[in-house]
Amino acid sequence: MNTQEIANDLVALCQQGKFDEAGEKYWADDVVSLEAGGDNAESHGREAARAKGEWWNGTFEINDVAVEGPYVNGDAFIVRFKMSTTNKQSGEKASMDETALYRLKDGKIAEERFFASM
Amino acid sequence: MNTQEIANDLVALCQQGKFDEAGEKYWADDVVSLEAGGDNAESHGREAARAKGEWWNGTFEINDVAVEGPYVNGDAFIVRFKMSTTNKQSGEKASMDETALYRLKDGKIAEERFFASM
Repeated sequence: MNTQEIANDLVALCQQGKFDEAGEKYWADDVVSLEAGGDNAESHGREAARAKGEWWNGTFEINDVAVEGPYVNGDAFIVRFKMSTTNKQSGEKASMDETALYRLKDGKIAEERFFASM
Repeated sequence: MNTQEIANDLVALCQQGKFDEAGEKYWADDVVSLEAGGDNAESHGREAARAKGEWWNGTFEINDVAVEGPYVNGDAFIVRFKMSTTNKQSGEKASMDETALYRLKDGKIAEERFFASM
């Protein structure tokens, strides 16, 4: 699969809410995952990426999601995520608009970097 | 100005259709500009970036433009451009949806990389 095909498949999975499956399918074993900020801005390896997803799933409920893209250039692509969430503990509702830049190596995500809008 | 401030200013200029001014204001002298494809996929330096813009302005008329973002992470940011254009020579109308990844160095754009949607 080339970059466009992998990117299309990842977007299709995310549009179905299958974020975990998308990660499991495409993360490299040594994937680097970079958030725009926060306590856990940089994580290394598939286990750490998975743990971040599990924390996220335990903390937020997704009410609505829109996934746009992919936008492709060479071995990299960008996806936009718009989401409305409810914090499972506090009940607080929030909306999120972010983009992710993925870099592939040998058909796997070597790096994912999330960009926040303010 | 930090990344967020530069990104906000660039987006504001582009929303006013001032793409050339945005480049002139923020390109580094040795800016690298990377298209998603085409004959002129990689250009080096402010003169080359300017020439690409002049070619673009001579070829297309912008009918409508939407600029979304910026999305920021560290010294980099992403902007989305949706545009409808008319080819000045052929009259052909087209629509474009792309994102750009900008990397700053010393407050200037060291690299701009455009990502295409298909």
